[in-house]
Amino acid sequence: MGNPYYECPLPVAIPPAKPLLESIKLGIKETLFPDDPFRQFKNQPASRKFILGMQYFVPILEWAPRYTFEFFKADLVAGITIASLAVPQGISYASLASLPPIIGLYSSFVPPLVYAMLGSSKDLAVGTVAVVSLLISSMLGKEVNPNENAKLYVQLAFTAAFFAGVFQVALGLLRLGFIVDFLSHATIVGFMGGAATVVCLQQLKGILGLVRFTHGTDLVSVMRSVFSQTHQWRWESGVLGCCFLFFLVLTRYVSKRKPCFFWINAMAPMMCVIVGSVLVYLTNAEKYGVQVIGHLKKGLNPLSVSELAFGSPYMVAAIKTGIITGVISLAEGVAVGRSFAMFKNYHIDGNKEMIAFGMMNIAGSCASCYLITGPFSRTAVNFNAGCKTAGSNIVMATAVMVTLLFLTPLFHYTPIVVLSSIIIAAMLGLIDYEAAIGLWKIDKGDFIVCMSAYIGVVFGSVEIGLVIPVTISLLRMLLSVARPRTFLLGNIPNSMIFRSVDQYPVANNIPGVLILQIDAPVNFANANYLRERISRWIYEEEEKLKSTGGSSLQYVILDLSAVGSTDTSGISMFKEVKKNIYRRGLKLVLANPRSEVIKKLVKSKFIESIGQEWIYLTVGEAVAACNFMLHASKSNNQVADEFDAHNNA
Amino acid sequence: MGNPYYECPLPVAIPPAKPLLESIKLGIKETLFPDDPFRQFKNQPASRKFILGMQYFVPILEWAPRYTFEFFKADLVAGITIASLAVPQGISYASLASLPPIIGLYSSFVPPLVYAMLGSSKDLAVGTVAVVSLLISSMLGKEVNPNENAKLYVQLAFTAAFFAGVFQVALGLLRLGFIVDFLSHATIVGFMGGAATVVCLQQLKGILGLVRFTHGTDLVSVMRSVFSQTHQWRWESGVLGCCFLFFLVLTRYVSKRKPCFFWINAMAPMMCVIVGSVLVYLTNAEKYGVQVIGHLKKGLNPLSVSELAFGSPYMVAAIKTGIITGVISLAEGVAVGRSFAMFKNYHIDGNKEMIAFGMMNIAGSCASCYLITGPFSRTAVNFNAGCKTAGSNIVMATAVMVTLLFLTPLFHYTPIVVLSSIIIAAMLGLIDYEAAIGLWKIDKGDFIVCMSAYIGVVFGSVEIGLVIPVTISLLRMLLSVARPRTFLLGNIPNSMIFRSVDQYPVANNIPGVLILQIDAPVNFANANYLRERISRWIYEEEEKLKSTGGSSLQYVILDLSAVGSTDTSGISMFKEVKKNIYRRGLKLVLANPRSEVIKKLVKSKFIESIGQEWIYLTVGEAVAACNFMLHASKSNNQVADEFDAHNNA
Repeated sequence: MGNPYYECPLPVAIPPAKPLLESIKLGIKETLFPDDPFRQFKNQPASRKFILGMQYFVPILEWAPRYTFEFFKADLVAGITIASLAVPQGISYASLASLPPIIGLYSSFVPPLVYAMLGSSKDLAVGTVAVVSLLISSMLGKEVNPNENAKLYVQLAFTAAFFAGVFQVALGLLRLGFIVDFLSHATIVGFMGGAATVVCLQQLKGILGLVRFTHGTDLVSVMRSVFSQTHQWRWESGVLGCCFLFFLVLTRYVSKRKPCFFWINAMAPMMCVIVGSVLVYLTNAEKYGVQVIGHLKKGLNPLSVSELAFGSPYMVAAIKTGIITGVISLAEGVAVGRSFAMFKNYHIDGNKEMIAFGMMNIAGSCASCYLITGPFSRTAVNFNAGCKTAGSNIVMATAVMVTLLFLTPLFHYTPIVVLSSIIIAAMLGLIDYEAAIGLWKIDKGDFIVCMSAYIGVVFGSVEIGLVIPVTISLLRMLLSVARPRTFLLGNIPNSMIFRSVDQYPVANNIPGVLILQIDAPVNFANANYLRERISRWIYEEEEKLKSTGGSSLQYVILDLSAVGSTDTSGISMFKEVKKNIYRRGLKLVLANPRSEVIKKLVKSKFIESIGQEWIYLTVGEAVAACNFMLHASKSNNQVADEFDAHNNA
Repeated sequence: MGNPYYECPLPVAIPPAKPLLESIKLGIKETLFPDDPFRQFKNQPASRKFILGMQYFVPILEWAPRYTFEFFKADLVAGITIASLAVPQGISYASLASLPPIIGLYSSFVPPLVYAMLGSSKDLAVGTVAVVSLLISSMLGKEVNPNENAKLYVQLAFTAAFFAGVFQVALGLLRLGFIVDFLSHATIVGFMGGAATVVCLQQLKGILGLVRFTHGTDLVSVMRSVFSQTHQWRWESGVLGCCFLFFLVLTRYVSKRKPCFFWINAMAPMMCVIVGSVLVYLTNAEKYGVQVIGHLKKGLNPLSVSELAFGSPYMVAAIKTGIITGVISLAEGVAVGRSFAMFKNYHIDGNKEMIAFGMMNIAGSCASCYLITGPFSRTAVNFNAGCKTAGSNIVMATAVMVTLLFLTPLFHYTPIVVLSSIIIAAMLGLIDYEAAIGLWKIDKGDFIVCMSAYIGVVFGSVEIGLVIPVTISLLRMLLSVARPRTFLLGNIPNSMIFRSVDQYPVANNIPGVLILQIDAPVNFANANYLRERISRWIYEEEEKLKSTGGSSLQYVILDLSAVGSTDTSGISMFKEVKKNIYRRGLKLVLANPRSEVIKKLVKSKFIESIGQEWIYLTVGEAVAACNFMLHASKSNNQVADEFDAHNNA
């Protein structure tokens, strides 16, 4: 029956049901291949497809044939610049990971070569990073003491790198890269800041020349360790460290102000190493409490396949460390690659990058390297130095190779305190308090996530600093699904537009009609809530009308524009809401149900039960129909009777 | 600059920022008190508030003063009816939980009294349930063998009931009842069906008169146990069991066909017990392999506070069992209470019900009761018998008390096989294959959840059957957030309405304008995906236009009607999309940003960067503006220049 007097001008379309297989196929495509990576393969002959496929998986095949001497010149300059950063950083970060310094150099040789072949970024300079190094030493150090059982510890570090690589390749191949997205920007800002703080604190050991030091990474243990041995502080070491640190911070400041001086910043660590080593050599400072690196073995990376500790009782720890460090390094590497690609206006495929990162770590773990990724600082130097292709990584690897073959003895007198200064200077840039302030301004929730990561790392451990913010983020997301907002809509004057009266105070209520907008997919997690909330809206509206003596409520319009999907619990919710509304003698009208929703409403016979003529394409049309009925019923009781008949049917 | 020729008629409102405290307060209210439970307390004097408060927490204070003799007559009939069901079911389910039968009777005495005082449902009949009994025996039975260490096992069952109660009260007090919603309807259909199947299989022990039986609950172990001892099968027991089962199923069928005969169904179990006991007594069948209950202790519940095994090494198992059974029993009890309340048109507060359930279980655990809830079958009988208030629970408890005090010796000769038949008959109703078919028809995803629960319970264990579907449901929800859909919108002919061209094939493209609708809140989990997806939409549209030779793309309109909220990752996404669109020489236009989104876009200076004049209230207005500009630029190059100037700024 319904409203025979008002003809719905534009019917709501009910799309035909798709075959199951087709909708599964579409779902997989939209879920796993949103960027349609194989679009260039379409309509190509088989041979061309093969070449494209090879180029897809091994990008060097694509750019190497077009490589020019101009490119080489640019890559050579950039490569040597980043190598001068890679050597001291490699040594520093390896000691941060409690590994022998030489492994830091090894790690800057093999993996960059692999990345140069497989990586699709033109700017990324790969290498060791401080945060991952810290993670390795804190996670593996809990299981095996790196001083007492050095060989096993190193083996576990290789094994962790291997599993990190396997995990990264798997994520990429299964196109599950979006898992990395769950480390939100806010989490990373807080986590990186916290990790940098912790790393800086740890360097007090080197700066103060302490021999014994805590294995804990939290603020409290470190501070206790530092202040319990004030009589052990070495002023020589401290003064040297502060000087180098001042120099490094100054160069960073200069090159930040004038980007054309980027090379000052890039060369500064190497200069510190040289100056520090010469100083120590000339003054015999190592005899006055300034610790030095000591002997570094000459020669290239030894193979380490046989060192991978697959049968070890510490396997689980290695796998866990591998997965966590793998995700963190992906989050950094992929984000850095993407940012610079966006800057230069080319596109990189996150999942493909993950495969490249994973392959490089698997290869590295077999050649005495620990986990590496694409750090922001080194990539920025590479970019500023004018790199053109991943060739700069090959140049860097070659430079590191030369160092390994001939120059290692030169590092014998390099003081540890220089390495500490280099690490601290690099870390200061990671404490991004401006980003944290920005989070506070824009989104308080994100700020809480960020601070929970920071506080978790600084006062708890690196794992706590990861688990808490990710949990908070997920709970926040679940809560937003479980508690979607509902809005009261009103008419914007002189239009057929209906908007939330909260946002548009000018919007007017329509007498006798309550218009509600549901703001999220209706599913099992929120169906009960929405039922209660809608019933409260109706109750409150009726109370308000009663107290103001307005005309009584007749229609409830649900605007479903923002309800993208629903499930069987959602359908039950609609049925219960309908029952509740009818029992109060009101009429339920739906506006703009979307294709997924209307399909399910039809299948569950809900549309049949309220009548196809009570579904409208827009809120405006629904209101027009309700108004028509209201006026008709005022002038003619017949309509009201008919309405009742329908209601009781 | 932008479009000086087209004046936006209705500006998008930017609501003023709310004070932080106020928005936190509002958030808590909407999240935890969606039904505004204290609305009747508003504007009342303090004394009235106190009375309302007492009535709120102890509903019997509300209905008892209005209790009439009419109500009593109705409750008396209903109470005796459900007592005749409670006694045999109590004994049966206790043995299902591997507890002494008398505990089943105890459990139908104290808790119903507590519920009658605190519960707000007028129809719920509380009592033991099969699924929870099964869960207790399978979860605690793994830790302690109920035959070898009966005392400890019973203590653990009480302790589990205690913790279930504490957990339920805590959920209710903290208004976290929505956690129960995560057991979706589909999960419960599958889980109940699976549990019922498993329980039926377990009853083969009683029906076949087997003495030794597996402790496993899965299909494979049970079948192996049954068929490995075919020579032990007792045909006497089997025949008796089948006869009773046939009788019970028949009575259920009859009362389903004719609801006025509900009492046949309700009385049938008691009749079976009486007939069975008399038969055994007269024929001395217990000597021919028909097992009987044996001696039941006379007297009321002994106190069991001192039995709560708080210091036991099995504490963790008891807590785990308590939490899982507590959630399951809440899911059943609250849903049943809510359904019947809806039927009789009154409202019950889920969180308040949880407190009532919890208090009754805490009280029960101190009085030798194990976990109970509000089973559907018994509540339906109560409802059909015409109960008026929770008083019927008091009548039932009184009847059980009389049984405990005087009638327990009568159950000495009750054959176990009768109990098995009663359990099977009750379970058959729980295998709701019609609901499963309905799920398949309406929502394939829900069907998969349902089947995973069923298969998990039948082939794995009850815990697996819970964890898998809940995990799938959550992952599905996360996936829908991480992969929101984007739609291409077109113009519905002869209107200003824009709808998805997928749903409305009549909708037309606007030349030179790409209109995309984002279908979910933009946050960290989907920001990367949306960026890639939008860039693919633009790419595909440009390719299409190129191949068809249409007019080139000029504007991208993002319809944000369905984007209820965003976070800082979402804001970054908008910024990157803008950069990408501008780099292609296109213009970004936003339509209908909602209050949360526009606030953050303004704070992050995004609106400033694209220009306030490119934000429209509706897609229609945005398209009109774009069309105006397109035509103006065709007739006058000045506009295009101005556009470029703006673009480069």
